[in-house]
Amino acid sequence: MATNLPPEEKIALIKSLLQEVLHEDILEQVILKEKRPLVIYWGTATTGKPHCGYFPPMVKLAHFLRAGCRIKILLADVHGFLDNLKAPIELVEYRAKYYKHVLTSLLRAVGVPLDKLEFVLGSDYQYSRDYRHDLDKLLTQTTVHDSTRAGAEVVKQTNTSPLLSSLIYPLMQALDEEYLKVDAQFGGVDQRKIFVLAQDVLPKISYKERAHLMNPMVPGLAGGKMSASDPDSKIDLLDTPDAVKKKVRKALCVPREVDGNGVISFVEYVLLPLAGLKGREEFRVERREDEGPALVYADIATLKADYAADVLTPQLLKSAVTTALNDVLAPIQADYQADATWQDITLKAYPPPIAEKKIKKEKKKGTKHPELVANADGSVKGEGREEAELGNGTADGMMEKLAV
Amino acid sequence: MATNLPPEEKIALIKSLLQEVLHEDILEQVILKEKRPLVIYWGTATTGKPHCGYFPPMVKLAHFLRAGCRIKILLADVHGFLDNLKAPIELVEYRAKYYKHVLTSLLRAVGVPLDKLEFVLGSDYQYSRDYRHDLDKLLTQTTVHDSTRAGAEVVKQTNTSPLLSSLIYPLMQALDEEYLKVDAQFGGVDQRKIFVLAQDVLPKISYKERAHLMNPMVPGLAGGKMSASDPDSKIDLLDTPDAVKKKVRKALCVPREVDGNGVISFVEYVLLPLAGLKGREEFRVERREDEGPALVYADIATLKADYAADVLTPQLLKSAVTTALNDVLAPIQADYQADATWQDITLKAYPPPIAEKKIKKEKKKGTKHPELVANADGSVKGEGREEAELGNGTADGMMEKLAV
Repeated sequence: MATNLPPEEKIALIKSLLQEVLHEDILEQVILKEKRPLVIYWGTATTGKPHCGYFPPMVKLAHFLRAGCRIKILLADVHGFLDNLKAPIELVEYRAKYYKHVLTSLLRAVGVPLDKLEFVLGSDYQYSRDYRHDLDKLLTQTTVHDSTRAGAEVVKQTNTSPLLSSLIYPLMQALDEEYLKVDAQFGGVDQRKIFVLAQDVLPKISYKERAHLMNPMVPGLAGGKMSASDPDSKIDLLDTPDAVKKKVRKALCVPREVDGNGVISFVEYVLLPLAGLKGREEFRVERREDEGPALVYADIATLKADYAADVLTPQLLKSAVTTALNDVLAPIQADYQADATWQDITLKAYPPPIAEKKIKKEKKKGTKHPELVANADGSVKGEGREEAELGNGTADGMMEKLAV
Repeated sequence: MATNLPPEEKIALIKSLLQEVLHEDILEQVILKEKRPLVIYWGTATTGKPHCGYFPPMVKLAHFLRAGCRIKILLADVHGFLDNLKAPIELVEYRAKYYKHVLTSLLRAVGVPLDKLEFVLGSDYQYSRDYRHDLDKLLTQTTVHDSTRAGAEVVKQTNTSPLLSSLIYPLMQALDEEYLKVDAQFGGVDQRKIFVLAQDVLPKISYKERAHLMNPMVPGLAGGKMSASDPDSKIDLLDTPDAVKKKVRKALCVPREVDGNGVISFVEYVLLPLAGLKGREEFRVERREDEGPALVYADIATLKADYAADVLTPQLLKSAVTTALNDVLAPIQADYQADATWQDITLKAYPPPIAEKKIKKEKKKGTKHPELVANADGSVKGEGREEAELGNGTADGMMEKLAV
């Protein structure tokens, strides 16, 4: 794939795989008329630990970079803090560093240019006087009803009254568009109501509307029944090849059933596009000699047809996905092994579950805390809760571990 | 009255006229044991214009000062901004300056020592990183339900969903207690739920509970039917003697009816205590020669009995109140006339109603804005709306006036 695409192809690449684009005119204005890089913001609350569900948004970030866009990844530590007081701000800070390491490594492995990629830490600007004064202005323009509705798909609905922090969150996400000086914000389609709120409120305080790029909700690789209490349900970006094999083998993958099949979705939204970014959009399924020659798919439609016909069986598919995924993860694993700083940060950000019982007990107390949805496609706003449980992080847990 | 009271008398003076004190133990700890001045915070959102309804809290501030307390008057410009976006921040800033002038003059006129009186502008510390981070912490600890309930008597209930700004407001009021480093907060009893919220939330972020001193809700001088649309319903602290006379004459004052009688309340909560602060607690009603000698009251009970018996008629009472009130206002008026800076600020803070029609029209648009209650006793948190209408202030109005 060419590194310097014609403008129309840039726009096509930016839009590829997306479910919806709001204000495409902004893309055209910037790329076709102003002929400058489109600046895009993607935010991730650094409360959890990036897993394979982060691949679909990373594929899109890779597309954006390949299309010459400037990308600002907001390491949203303040959002994380507002989401989940159980992950104390110190832990969230370490996790922000971990995110930077793992996401950079992942994008580097994809082979896209990283010179237009920038990480911004939320707390570096979200406590400035100007930002907070603007946030106050937005508070005077937004009702509880409107903010609750905006966050409905990101912040899980509970029977109890929502915490105020969960209502500030969407407004900060809107204001970030102005303070990060971007043309567009990218996220999962679950963010749609927050994006619409942003388009509604920014002009009220004299800032301009931004474009919004939305990924579809992609089923998790492990299928619809992902559970936070089952550590096998998510594949960590640093899992060993054996662990990956075991987890993929456990993934829900009903024969002939294409819809909602997380393994097929992973091929569609991750493995095929990643192959495309590396040179050729192709997914290869090796078979035993007695099964016939390898199945090679250049598009997802053919693969789906074969799967529906049971030519491509769950076993064959899972085996091929395991191989392809491990190929993708290998350079990340290598980066990690070669980087003592990253290893050190990992230990601090995700202290091993030494004090698990204590943590479970503490969590039960927090009945008022809003449960947050973990989005299978890794559109990560507000998925902190599930992640945090996997991460087993509390300040106590960390202290105990470090004291060993 | 002695300027250096024994500790027990200090506490008695602090508590006098109050309806309720929460955590009186804190008063005792500070005054009896630590033997240091009690530090008290009283906040006023600088959205309106101080009128005679401000006298009851000023009487108490005078008591506190006489009792050796340190007083911090928070000129709550940020609160004012959060209350009422219609009064733009620039106007609110000028009003903060006006408040400082008029409240200082008023307290000086009462004759209490002002060396322990301090004015603090909210925006001077409420946008600091520490303050905002603490506020974020409180947001993660407080539900919409709890904050709405806390502000219920201060922020008028509407059918529409409350603005987020109205829910932040009570939490800032709580946090101010810590940042102003006070022992107690003073306000009207309508603030009770906010005070209880403050006692509840501050310990959650490791700050200590404060004492709370509450004035009763005192009916307005002009009676229960005060209306913002009737400029005669409130007596401005800078009204001329004639204007005062006219407004008091119009005040609702049913013969023999003591309960809810704003004119009698004004004697009870303002004129008698002010006389006390000046030397002798006494209220004098002159009569025509044919009516008998002057009626002199050293306590409110006797006055009420005479009023119930129609010995003290509404006409006599109003005439005496007019005389006494004009005596109180005279030095404030004199201060104002001698101070060009104050006069200049007044013009900027309360531009004359030159653009009234335009303002009315603009106000209609703001249907989402929560109506705020004007408290007759001048416990002024959240009374901005009514005041702002009297003040006729919008940015446009101000600009047009200044351009003349």
